Amino acid sequence: MTDILGKNYIGGQRSAAGSVIVKSVDATTGEKLPFDFYQATLEEVDAAAKAAAAAYPAYRSLSAAKRADFLDAIADEIDGLGDDFVALVCQETALPAGRIQGERGRTSGQMRLFAKVLRRGDFYGARIDQALPDRKPLARPDLRQYRIGLGPVAVFGASNFPLAFSTAGGDTASALAAGCPVVFKAHSGHMATAEYVANALIRAAEKTGMPTGVFNMIYGGGVGEALVKHPAIQAVGFTGSLSGGRALCDMAAARPQPIPVFAEMSSINPVVILPAALNARGEAIASELTASVVQGCGQFCTNPGLVIGIRSVQFTAFQQRLAGLIGDQPPQTMLNAGTLKSYGKGLEKLLAHSAIEHLGGSTQQGSQAQPQLFKADVSLLLNGDDVLQEEVFGPTTVLIEVADQAQLSAALSGLHGQLTATLIAEPADFAQFPELTPLLEQKVGRILVNGYPTGVEVCDSMVHGGPYPATSDARGTSVGTLAIDRFLRPVCFQNYPQDLLPDALKNANPLGIQRLVDGTPSREKLA
Amino acid sequence: MTDILGKNYIGGQRSAAGSVIVKSVDATTGEKLPFDFYQATLEEVDAAAKAAAAAYPAYRSLSAAKRADFLDAIADEIDGLGDDFVALVCQETALPAGRIQGERGRTSGQMRLFAKVLRRGDFYGARIDQALPDRKPLARPDLRQYRIGLGPVAVFGASNFPLAFSTAGGDTASALAAGCPVVFKAHSGHMATAEYVANALIRAAEKTGMPTGVFNMIYGGGVGEALVKHPAIQAVGFTGSLSGGRALCDMAAARPQPIPVFAEMSSINPVVILPAALNARGEAIASELTASVVQGCGQFCTNPGLVIGIRSVQFTAFQQRLAGLIGDQPPQTMLNAGTLKSYGKGLEKLLAHSAIEHLGGSTQQGSQAQPQLFKADVSLLLNGDDVLQEEVFGPTTVLIEVADQAQLSAALSGLHGQLTATLIAEPADFAQFPELTPLLEQKVGRILVNGYPTGVEVCDSMVHGGPYPATSDARGTSVGTLAIDRFLRPVCFQNYPQDLLPDALKNANPLGIQRLVDGTPSREKLA
Repeated sequence: MTDILGKNYIGGQRSAAGSVIVKSVDATTGEKLPFDFYQATLEEVDAAAKAAAAAYPAYRSLSAAKRADFLDAIADEIDGLGDDFVALVCQETALPAGRIQGERGRTSGQMRLFAKVLRRGDFYGARIDQALPDRKPLARPDLRQYRIGLGPVAVFGASNFPLAFSTAGGDTASALAAGCPVVFKAHSGHMATAEYVANALIRAAEKTGMPTGVFNMIYGGGVGEALVKHPAIQAVGFTGSLSGGRALCDMAAARPQPIPVFAEMSSINPVVILPAALNARGEAIASELTASVVQGCGQFCTNPGLVIGIRSVQFTAFQQRLAGLIGDQPPQTMLNAGTLKSYGKGLEKLLAHSAIEHLGGSTQQGSQAQPQLFKADVSLLLNGDDVLQEEVFGPTTVLIEVADQAQLSAALSGLHGQLTATLIAEPADFAQFPELTPLLEQKVGRILVNGYPTGVEVCDSMVHGGPYPATSDARGTSVGTLAIDRFLRPVCFQNYPQDLLPDALKNANPLGIQRLVDGTPSREKLA
Repeated sequence: MTDILGKNYIGGQRSAAGSVIVKSVDATTGEKLPFDFYQATLEEVDAAAKAAAAAYPAYRSLSAAKRADFLDAIADEIDGLGDDFVALVCQETALPAGRIQGERGRTSGQMRLFAKVLRRGDFYGARIDQALPDRKPLARPDLRQYRIGLGPVAVFGASNFPLAFSTAGGDTASALAAGCPVVFKAHSGHMATAEYVANALIRAAEKTGMPTGVFNMIYGGGVGEALVKHPAIQAVGFTGSLSGGRALCDMAAARPQPIPVFAEMSSINPVVILPAALNARGEAIASELTASVVQGCGQFCTNPGLVIGIRSVQFTAFQQRLAGLIGDQPPQTMLNAGTLKSYGKGLEKLLAHSAIEHLGGSTQQGSQAQPQLFKADVSLLLNGDDVLQEEVFGPTTVLIEVADQAQLSAALSGLHGQLTATLIAEPADFAQFPELTPLLEQKVGRILVNGYPTGVEVCDSMVHGGPYPATSDARGTSVGTLAIDRFLRPVCFQNYPQDLLPDALKNANPLGIQRLVDGTPSREKLA
């Protein structure tokens, strides 16, 4: 088993300058694990940011192929993390081994997909407008554009995906792909896991000859603020709560030099069950929806937190069936004590609200989360009541019954921004409710038909983003290859000598990439 | 001549609910022009934002081809603005007629270029990952991504380009192209000009059957704050001062729902004159640089405000020559009294600084701007003194003499973010100073060789952006077709029925656009 040193990762070295020790916890028993983690001092935060800044000029200047080799090497190292690693992650998070094994594959697969993007070269956004010396009234100079990394990126991982959204997760992968060194703030919920993964990253960096400082990691509470405010940091990736994400956004915006933050925060992921589908397969929908609500103890950003249907005999039957199914689900252990406490508080808010009824689920108590079903009056959506708008993170969902088609649109219009919306529908429903797609498109990053939002494919077309408060910037995504765009900026070269241009923009097109040449996509060499 | 009504443009109507009258001024004489402009009331600001929001669902749902027709129609209307219009713009801005005629062509050309982008279809960013039903361990759903407009955009035009960066300028053009209705805040420096252009826009909207509210315009001081804070506004485009731009950024970040702001603000556009070039053509460089510094009375975002060279006999001669040339330039009338006052204050700051020497130019006084040349000690850059970092908007520039090659890099490293940097160089210089391109690339949006930064081509490859404080977000540009990206966000469809997908994502590819299909660019139909 790997030794857990608990020291911060700064510029290729381990550092333990501070005296504050933080501990990791067995998520199931609540007992402290036998590892000491050294909370980074302010000087160590500074050193980590500076190490990333020092690595940036060399790292960003590497060819995309070299960076791709690095990402592939990280993937190999992550795949090589064995049973002892999986056992440790399970201990820190209470997630089942199968889930962790799957997440390991997702995490390495994500790295390899970004390596593909680097070799494909479309991330460069290469554009060439050749000189027009004879143009009247003025000649046009030769202009060429490509994209480079913003600079060092601070990444804050999520508790709920200790691998795929954490140390070597999507934010780190996309930042490294973009040519940005990373300073990662280890999540307090899985610091030993983070250490394993950081070691894998460092091994890959050493094997592929990356500059030291390309990846840095710090431990401890309260160190995030100093990191986000550090002048060397040029962008932030975050996955977590609305309050945490918004706090980082506010800090970043108030810096002498404001920097972009992509924070993936709060989403209740409405599922709309339309009448013909309810008629045709109400029982199956109730079972599938229940499975989605309690999957992974409801600890998904895309957990369906709101289920909307139109008043009918069928909907009443569906509601009863769903209440029974949810009530029958066993309790599950959550990621950590904090998550369980938040879940309890979220449930109390729902239970205390006069316009919300409790339909199913055992009383929340003890050390595990009890799945719950509620029903809220549609007026809460129509009037924009806050109680429905922030997610209750855990295995719970809220039913809404609307009076008719018009009220369905009105209720959906009352929603804030979301990561996802789902339509459960038959062809007859699509014919009857054509207004739903354009309406939901304005609210969300991803619209699904006849599926469930849990399960976020890592691919070119995925959007794991959406209008506020789902994220802090609807123009980004934290899953899928488009995530790299968050960390790139364009640079233009005017009348530049060929040999000084980056390869992506040379006439000879040595990378063989597609470029927009005088307004037309082309892989041709230029004369 | 068009009647100037001075009423706000709200949802296709003219509105003058307020009692505060603002006046436009003859820039040369300082006399008030005989037009009354009705400052928008808070209710009118609200109505304008709501009109844009009401137009958004219909406008964004139009085909890109229809939006392209609208932009082309705007271009035609702008081209049709005749001599009386040009005379009025000259009166409001003191810019010469030739410049305004050129800017008119640039503005209509910009609209037509965005129409091309819409027809080309790459702005959709269409991506398709087809279903893999047999994939193990889990099937992959069908996932498709395209981009839609963010929603209503507030635009604040610049004083220095009353056409190309104003009412129908690059921000408005890119927002309208993206499918975003616009609320434009007319610049107080050219409100009659704005009215002419707004009329042209409205005529084009009516001719092409656009929804009313696709373009709105409000007059007056202090109305911008209410506009940026309005919940219907989803993004902001701004060109102007650092203090003005930063204030808007701070407001936008502090909203209950933060929104993106692209503010193009302050840049001193360093020009580095390398030794071999200085040797080969020092006299010509002095003449060309002088012309660039005083062009348009120095009222360009890309005016070269800092000139850096290495200590030598040649550089001393160059400095003397430049001082003489700048001293010989006639004074010019600035855009308005406020600009002249700011220019005077900026000069006073430079004159008062103990480490800055005045080399050339007549004493600033009277109603016109006197071109000036200063020389600052390199320590100001090395130590990050603020005095050199904010632009002095007008016909002035500051020389810096560095001791040697190492100090040149150190001085350039001390610069904040810039729109442009320029190298005046011979092949021998490039061989001797290979460190400059990677260094400058980290500082700027555009690097030029052997040209001058004034003159910003409107094309696919242009970047008129750069790290803070040049802009508020280095990932954007306000000139060139990439400007549309600022106002687009991705949406993903999962397992969506063919007939409900947007045309850009249908199997049949009815738009004939290039899409990223399973990781490969393709224009093919899918089975």
